Amino acid sequence: MSEVRDLAARFRAGHKAALARAISWAENGDPSYPEFLRSVYASVGRAWRTGITGPPGAGKSTLVNELAKNLRARDRTVGILAVDPSSPISGGALLGDRIRMEERTSDAGVYIRSMASRGGHGGLSRASSDACDVIDAFGIDEVLLETVGVGQAEYDVVSATDTVVVVLCPGAGDGIQAMKAGILEVADVLVVNKVDLPGSDRLLMDLEESAHIRHAGTGRWIPPVVGCSAGKSQGIDEVLAAMDSHRDHLRATGLAAVRAAKRVAQVQRVLHERLAVQLWGAGGQGERVRALLEAGRTPYDVVDELAEHFTSALRSRA
Amino acid sequence: MSEVRDLAARFRAGHKAALARAISWAENGDPSYPEFLRSVYASVGRAWRTGITGPPGAGKSTLVNELAKNLRARDRTVGILAVDPSSPISGGALLGDRIRMEERTSDAGVYIRSMASRGGHGGLSRASSDACDVIDAFGIDEVLLETVGVGQAEYDVVSATDTVVVVLCPGAGDGIQAMKAGILEVADVLVVNKVDLPGSDRLLMDLEESAHIRHAGTGRWIPPVVGCSAGKSQGIDEVLAAMDSHRDHLRATGLAAVRAAKRVAQVQRVLHERLAVQLWGAGGQGERVRALLEAGRTPYDVVDELAEHFTSALRSRA
Repeated sequence: MSEVRDLAARFRAGHKAALARAISWAENGDPSYPEFLRSVYASVGRAWRTGITGPPGAGKSTLVNELAKNLRARDRTVGILAVDPSSPISGGALLGDRIRMEERTSDAGVYIRSMASRGGHGGLSRASSDACDVIDAFGIDEVLLETVGVGQAEYDVVSATDTVVVVLCPGAGDGIQAMKAGILEVADVLVVNKVDLPGSDRLLMDLEESAHIRHAGTGRWIPPVVGCSAGKSQGIDEVLAAMDSHRDHLRATGLAAVRAAKRVAQVQRVLHERLAVQLWGAGGQGERVRALLEAGRTPYDVVDELAEHFTSALRSRA
Repeated sequence: MSEVRDLAARFRAGHKAALARAISWAENGDPSYPEFLRSVYASVGRAWRTGITGPPGAGKSTLVNELAKNLRARDRTVGILAVDPSSPISGGALLGDRIRMEERTSDAGVYIRSMASRGGHGGLSRASSDACDVIDAFGIDEVLLETVGVGQAEYDVVSATDTVVVVLCPGAGDGIQAMKAGILEVADVLVVNKVDLPGSDRLLMDLEESAHIRHAGTGRWIPPVVGCSAGKSQGIDEVLAAMDSHRDHLRATGLAAVRAAKRVAQVQRVLHERLAVQLWGAGGQGERVRALLEAGRTPYDVVDELAEHFTSALRSRA
């Protein structure tokens, strides 16, 4: 029996070690992963995927822990994927946060996995989306994908999940922390955590206003704004209720079409990445571009030359 | 004499009609543009390029008008390029704003051009960057590129200009309007316009705090935060002084390297665009991806199939 078929068999039999192995394949871009995915792909699509994102310090891990607890009380199995796109240092901090979550790992209905950044951003995006597929195929009911909302990461959350929960907290420059990048743009549910801190009323109000300005009259989903205090286990039911309302909305308005569109975008992204690697190579063509520009070529002439170089390289492989 | 050489000759002789024509070539992606650019490219790089961006309603056009007036008082020639990435409707509104600027057009030292969105975002990005090159090659001292800071547009401003001025104003949800996308990330100078409105002190403070949190200890440029009231011609000197300080900083720390890096990134972007068109074609391969996914293929299998399709298509042209 091949390694892939062996893993797929143990995976289908529900062994968590096989799940862990399969996620590692996805994470590392193992050459066996595509074949493995093919063998379990018919099982993908049954889980509900929720992304939890927001700036550092908003209390995402604590909220995820509380959400998992509440989902377990509803008899839903839960897979938690915590992705940290930043440095090894905050990777360590994140793993520290995870220690508090270990109380859940004794529960067979919960699977927790941290994923640190290796290589470029595109790689992490692909890896986290693939890991969601794997957890989904394993038969887990609820996937919670936790990411730090900085830079482009939040758009990856959208493409990998069905519902995006954006978590903010008052203080530390109030709304300024949320300005970092369009994390409000991607929210299906807006959560103000640590709602007992000063400034939370203002933040809740600002978010309500912003959500209505952005979406009123568009016929689009208006993200509900919910306050909670995850550290005190308060307001978690309200967060879940808001998540449920978005899930109901999607199911009523065409979940399959939304998911299909996200898959198409995912394929286009992966294909672009692959062609970019073919084009630029491991080291990149940056030096070559620079040299041509320094020699006085116009950007258009450089593009022409490199495009020709690229197509010749492909032809020579024929 | 060919059309291109004829235009280049009139362009070098300083005819504004030739400048306008060349920008139209850049804007429309005319097949003659690359040859024209080649013929004047040695003159590119002498202008200073300032991007002015911010949310709608911040008063960008008024500020640009005031900056132009003050730069003219310094005997600098000014080219204004106003780019509107949004719908034809707001394109109209923008042209309305421009009417107030007509007072400047009787001054031979000022050139004003509006550019509305046609086709995709990538096209507008390329067109506005090219138009800056053309104005620069014409021998104008100062290029002011005005864009609405929404979505990805602000990153285009960075790649097309030397100094980025982000304009905000108090009220209307205060900082919330700035949350729309990471427009703070790209600021070299932060301007609070309409500084006589209530809430401006708080906004100035929030921006100061945010700028310091983001950059303190990194050794990087910390964007100065300046208040002004463009509508009352107040504080414009302070905005110009902040722009000058950034210009001095860049010249002291290696302007050539920064500009070269931006050019390299520009070439890579244009090349990606061209290959994407080759790959997806005019209509896009979205339907094909969708059909393959609906037939139950995994995303990886679809990528394999399309990558093979793409390389075969290139080979067959050999």
